Parts: sequence; C-alpha cells; structure tokens
Amino acid sequence: MTTTLLEETCARIREPDAELAAETQRRLDAKTKPPGSLGRLEELACRFAAIRGDASAAPPRKAVVVMGADHGVAAELVSAYPQEVTAQMLLNFARGGAAINVLARQAGARVVVVDMGVKGALPPVPEIRSERVAAGTQNFTRGPAMTRAQAVQAIEVGIGIAGELAAEGITLLGVGDMGIGNTTASSALAAAFTGAPADEGSGRGTGVDDAGLRRKIDVVRRALALHRPDPADGVGTLAQLGGFEIAGLAGVVLGGVAARVPVVIDGFICSAAALAATRIAPAAAASLIASHRSVEAGHRALLKAIGQHPLLDLDLRLGEGTGAVLAMNLVDAALAIVREMATFASAGVSDRAG
Amino acid sequence: MTTTLLEETCARIREPDAELAAETQRRLDAKTKPPGSLGRLEELACRFAAIRGDASAAPPRKAVVVMGADHGVAAELVSAYPQEVTAQMLLNFARGGAAINVLARQAGARVVVVDMGVKGALPPVPEIRSERVAAGTQNFTRGPAMTRAQAVQAIEVGIGIAGELAAEGITLLGVGDMGIGNTTASSALAAAFTGAPADEGSGRGTGVDDAGLRRKIDVVRRALALHRPDPADGVGTLAQLGGFEIAGLAGVVLGGVAARVPVVIDGFICSAAALAATRIAPAAAASLIASHRSVEAGHRALLKAIGQHPLLDLDLRLGEGTGAVLAMNLVDAALAIVREMATFASAGVSDRAG
Repeated sequence: MTTTLLEETCARIREPDAELAAETQRRLDAKTKPPGSLGRLEELACRFAAIRGDASAAPPRKAVVVMGADHGVAAELVSAYPQEVTAQMLLNFARGGAAINVLARQAGARVVVVDMGVKGALPPVPEIRSERVAAGTQNFTRGPAMTRAQAVQAIEVGIGIAGELAAEGITLLGVGDMGIGNTTASSALAAAFTGAPADEGSGRGTGVDDAGLRRKIDVVRRALALHRPDPADGVGTLAQLGGFEIAGLAGVVLGGVAARVPVVIDGFICSAAALAATRIAPAAAASLIASHRSVEAGHRALLKAIGQHPLLDLDLRLGEGTGAVLAMNLVDAALAIVREMATFASAGVSDRAG
Repeated sequence: MTTTLLEETCARIREPDAELAAETQRRLDAKTKPPGSLGRLEELACRFAAIRGDASAAPPRKAVVVMGADHGVAAELVSAYPQEVTAQMLLNFARGGAAINVLARQAGARVVVVDMGVKGALPPVPEIRSERVAAGTQNFTRGPAMTRAQAVQAIEVGIGIAGELAAEGITLLGVGDMGIGNTTASSALAAAFTGAPADEGSGRGTGVDDAGLRRKIDVVRRALALHRPDPADGVGTLAQLGGFEIAGLAGVVLGGVAARVPVVIDGFICSAAALAATRIAPAAAASLIASHRSVEAGHRALLKAIGQHPLLDLDLRLGEGTGAVLAMNLVDAALAIVREMATFASAGVSDRAG
C-alpha cells in the first residue's frame, strides 16, 4: 500500500506545543513591563514558539510563496482587468517591481514566484518557477474547474515547495496569490465551505462595477447549484471551484505546517486556500497566522472558519502576499521583545510587589 | 511686545498641503495595482507628503521622544506599581533594555529620553536629557498639578527638543511617556477636554484591581469638581490636571508639526498630550498620525477628539512610545511603495482599460 505525498504530509501535522507557549509567556512576564501589556505581540511570540517547537525566539528567516494561475471563470466577465494581466504580473514579480516585491524587501522576505498555470506560456525567466498544471482552469459554471488529480497535483507542488524552503532554513512562510478571476473562485469556495450565501461572500475584487458584482454573485450561485460541493471534502471542493494557484497555496500551508513553519495567510484568496487546507487537515488551523482583514466582503467569514483573528486592518485588497509580509514585521517585533528586553531583576526595576 | 516660543511656534503651524497629497495619489494610481488597493498605506503616503510639504517619499529619518515624570496624584494609590519605577524605567531606557528600545531598534528610530521631573534625582547619565521642571507634580485632587508657568515651561522644552531634532534632519517623530500615575492624569484630561464621564475615560492603566479603578474614577471626579477646567484652555487644563511629561509631549507635538515633521502618537497618555496640543493649536491635528488603539478605556474618545483613526489595534497598553515605533514600520512601507513600485507603463502591464 503506497502513501501519497499529500497523505504523508497530513499525517505529519501536529498541534502547536502548548508548553512552549507557556514557557515563552513566563519569559515575557519577567520583562520590565506590566504583564500582558504588549497584547497581541505577546500572543504572537508565544504562538510562534509553540508552532515552531522552538522557544529560542531566534529572528525568523522569511519567504513568501506567490502563486499565479488563470481561471476559466474569467470568461464570465467577473474581473475589471483582462486575463493577460496574470502573466504580466508574474513577470512584474520576477523583475521586482510589484507591491509584493517592495514590501517583501522591507520585511526581509525572499519572494518565490510560481507559475501554476497561466493561460499563455511565459517566457522562461529564472525568477519564475514553472509548475504548470494546465493553461488555466475550466469555467466552473459549466463543469469542474479541474480534475481531482489536478487538484492533488497542485497541492503537492505547494507541499514540495514549502518542504524545500523549510529544508533551506526558512522559519516563517507567507503565501500570496495572483490570478484574474480568483476572487470569484474564492467566493465560491467560501460559500461552499462556510455555507454563507453567495451575495455575502462576494465583493468587488480588483474593482468591478455593480453589474460585475451581480455577475459574480450569479456565477457563484450557478456553480453551487451545479456542483453541490461537499464542504468536508477539501480536495473535491478545490477541484470543483478552485484554481491551480489556490490549490497550490493550500499545499504550501500543509507543507509549511507539517514542517512546523508558521504560515502567514494573506487576504481573501489565501484565506480560501487556507480554509481548504484545514478541511483537508484540521490540525493545520492552529499553525496559521492571519495577517490582515481585507475589505473583500467574504473575508471575515473565512477567517472565522479558520479560527484566526487578523493582526492588521488596513483596508488592503491587493493580494500578492502584501498583507502577509506586512504582518511579518510584527513577528520580528514580537520575537525581538522576547530576545532583547531586560527583566525586572536584570534592570533593577521594582515589580508590582513593590 | 515680545512673543513667547509657544506663541511663535503656534503661529508657524500650517495645515498639510492637499496638493502634495493629490500628487502622491496620482503617482500611486499609476502603479501596477488596482487603484486604492493598498488602502491605508496609500492614505499614509499621501498624508506624509502633505504634512512634510515634500512629495519625494524619501525614507524617513526617525526619532521617538520618551519623556518621564512623577505625579503627585500617585499618593491616591491609583497605580499597581510604586512611584520609584518611573526613575528606574528611565534608567532602563538609557541602558536600552526596555520595550521601546527593542522596538525602536527594529524600526530604526533613535530614542531620546527626557527627565521632565521624576521625584528623586537621577544619577547623571548621558543618555538621559535632564529638563526637570520640578520633582514631580502636586496632587491635583488638592490643587493644580503645576503652575501655568510650569506648564508653559514644560511645553517649551518639548518644542525645543522637536525643533532640534527637525534641524538635525529627523523627518518622522514619535512620542512616548513614562510616569507612574499618568493614566489617571490622562483620564482627568480626557474627561476635561471631551466632556466624557469620569468612569468612561478611566481604565486599569498598568493593571490596577477593581478597588484601584474605583479610586481612579473618584480621583477624576473630585479633580473635575475642584478645578472646573475650561476645555478651550489647553495650557490651563494641562496645568490643573496634567503632568510634566504630558505637557512636554504636547510641546513635542507642537514643535514637530511647526517644523512640518509628522508626529506619530502612541497610546492613551500621548493622545491626551496630543489633544491638549490641538486645543492650543487646532491646526496641528491634521499633522498627527495615530499609531494604535490602546485597550485603555478612554482612548477611543481621545482619538475621536483628535480626529485621527489609528493604524494598529493590537491590544497594547504599555506606553513608552511602543505603538508609535511599531506604526513607523507602516510609514516606511507606504513610502517604499511610492518610491519603488513599477508603473503599468514601465512594467508593460495592461491597465483596466484593457
């Protein structure tokens, strides 16, 4: 009996180590500050130790995996931008000119760009890793976006990349997406996984007008009626309604968590990928770090379903991993507090006991 | 007729330059992203240019001014910590072991520590600037915390320090506080300036218990009944209810804004100082950047009165300028986006027109 990479990965996923969180909290409570006064930074430091299985609070080595792919559902006119923008933006990522490049440089994070299946072939550039499953998904209003085998293939690409990065010493992973049409796929996934009505989980994406938004909601309704997705079947639902980059990012989540690398989730699309991952391996949820609350309508329900509370609320709606790398600065800050702050004893400061 | 430093400073304060904000927004709209999709980062970049009067988006040179002083009202047992902690913590700041030191290093901000009047004299250490107004304020439940002349003196110390830093090339200022008892002073100032009831504007500070919180609310009520502060008189209200560090920080706000240096406000105490500054010079409000929403009860009303919406909401309640320097990372990110991102034209990416 053979075990697939996906099965083997899920079997390795563990809950975070609560004892290391408690040890980190004790260390924080000896620092020269009122207990708990650094709020969510303290929580973040404790969670990082628990997820990593390492209380050293060493500065994280960071990477963000940005996956791009095209979507058959773009034919339903659900985006404000033409489909060729997906490929153009991957080339922009490769040249370092996009928002994710700028913000990743600020955060000291390496950017790993992956072509999971854009429509037209890209020129071979060394900065883009080619892992093409197909030249874009099928239009999921007419049939499944991809086969189940393709979904597993995409997930396993993500698992492989996360495993390689962990083996190279990366200790903090972010995920980011690019794909014209992918907010519509994510709205469909959100509706399928959370049971929220199509109109509650659909937003303006890159900026569609009222007619575009009505088309998106209609697309999601038709897709749910056609596929009747099983919310307990993460792989099957990804195959019906997802995208190659979304499935790939679900794989990065699984592969990262299996290697005890905390995974920072970006916005709406990455949260849909993360929710799919937690339907495949529920124990993965506790090792995720939600970076920000997107303005995209369905994001709140996705975060609730993952069980993580976002760190930032900056009205972002760009994707690419931009929110994820911004939040990495807070992880740096939280760990520096653990490593560098003086204790009441070392600084000669009176504690509450007086 | 002579003009005081305070009067001269207020006369130099201008509203931000709306044309530079618009120019920055046009520059952002040409970048390879949907318009407005970086949300509050875009707003921050535009505000920074407008406040500075400079659309270059050059990386900011940062400093945080942390002022400490003692409070006569500490005699009313309103803090969980003994009064000697104020001086001990200033020495901790001088040695680089406090949270503000750690987070300022992360943000690349210089820390300027100022003794505005702790109770016992500090040993002379070069890292602490001595600007002592007196050995702590008076207990404001029995009379004014300080004289009006002392309030002006403290404000002018802050103006002077901000002016020096601006002259040295600092382009982004933060403010931070240290002073056992200063959340009680700030609650009294919040009640005086906003008219909010004493119980709504009083919180647990460093962590007082229920009895301590009741004492704080009672102290604020008695102080308001005794002084009947005039909310339009910023200096007079600071003299009645403030602290030397709070008045000094109001001065840093005024001096920074007069030099067209954006001032990042920390939590509850610094927001009380900033609100006092805007009562002295209303035009200063538009040049402030609110860093975070503290868990301290009265902070929301103070931020509303200043008219600024905080960037972060991380359940912080430490003070020292910790929230201010965390938010400086977002200013860095916002300006890097303006400087470094490719445009649709330069990257060969199709815009919405298709």
